[in-house]
Amino acid sequence: MRPKDQTKYNAIINSSLELVKELGFTGISISKIAKQANISPATIYIHFKNKEDLFTKLYTKIRTNMSNGALQGIHEKMDMEQIFKSIWINSFSYNLNHPDYLIYREKFEKTPMMENIKQEDFELYIYVENLFQRGIKKHIFKDLPIPLLISFAFVPIITLLNFHFEGVINMDENYIAEACEIAWNALNH
Amino acid sequence: MRPKDQTKYNAIINSSLELVKELGFTGISISKIAKQANISPATIYIHFKNKEDLFTKLYTKIRTNMSNGALQGIHEKMDMEQIFKSIWINSFSYNLNHPDYLIYREKFEKTPMMENIKQEDFELYIYVENLFQRGIKKHIFKDLPIPLLISFAFVPIITLLNFHFEGVINMDENYIAEACEIAWNALNH
Repeated sequence: MRPKDQTKYNAIINSSLELVKELGFTGISISKIAKQANISPATIYIHFKNKEDLFTKLYTKIRTNMSNGALQGIHEKMDMEQIFKSIWINSFSYNLNHPDYLIYREKFEKTPMMENIKQEDFELYIYVENLFQRGIKKHIFKDLPIPLLISFAFVPIITLLNFHFEGVINMDENYIAEACEIAWNALNH
Repeated sequence: MRPKDQTKYNAIINSSLELVKELGFTGISISKIAKQANISPATIYIHFKNKEDLFTKLYTKIRTNMSNGALQGIHEKMDMEQIFKSIWINSFSYNLNHPDYLIYREKFEKTPMMENIKQEDFELYIYVENLFQRGIKKHIFKDLPIPLLISFAFVPIITLLNFHFEGVINMDENYIAEACEIAWNALNH
């Protein structure tokens, strides 16, 4: 992409994020996004087939970024606890620094567009599923269905972030570490 | 209320639940509810000032029922673990048997109507906050902010129920008991 096109592309992405936050998916049109981005609707159609294509690609981009953020610095020599805690803290910090992404993700996942998304396309999903399978096999983790374990080990990240953004708790480094410890203990025998 | 009025009142409530599930709050009007309930809009205005009044009263009714369901059978002679686990299992079972209430609650809580709701009006909220304060004071629970503890101890109930209704896991009695154990351990030192 030429620098000028990249600037316009970024304006489309940022305007979409802002408008979804403000109006939700049902209230948005390509023309509203174009207006907000200060470009012509035709420019949007150079990059995206339609509204659904734009929203879906933006979701995929956000999930890929979250995935890369969460897996940063993970290497083979770490043990299971180090890997789990690194992913946990990375995920928390990445989302803490990108509140717009989290809002977009949560809203998108309530729409029928979600039917076109394959979880297996995201490295983090594969990695975590694998980690849990190994943990269960090695009798380090409880032998329970992975979604049950994830409900206690990872989903609270979303709850805690929402509480943080609403001002209910201030998730400082100390509380993040304590919460990560609870999540780790939830998995263990 | 006369039996005939009670029947109509119930029809309004049930139609509202169905329509919110189907269309969400933005897509609904008093006339749609009246049509679905097979009564005249005037009958709705006998019981409720307007749409917001109806939706808010329905939310309060649902929360009160959930609260009563969760606190059933709790008595003074139980210790903290018995109380926590009874509330946990009761809450899980109540919501498992009332999926429409859970959907309504989750949708309502994302609307601005939520600003008129005081959490302190629900016995369960008071009871749980009290339980956590006592638990922390007695050094049975971790000395962390209550919302942080609740994110691990109670919020996963919602996640697990959603997984159950989506067919991701089948939350049978065994898994409910295992999940309750994880929730209890999350609180403890």
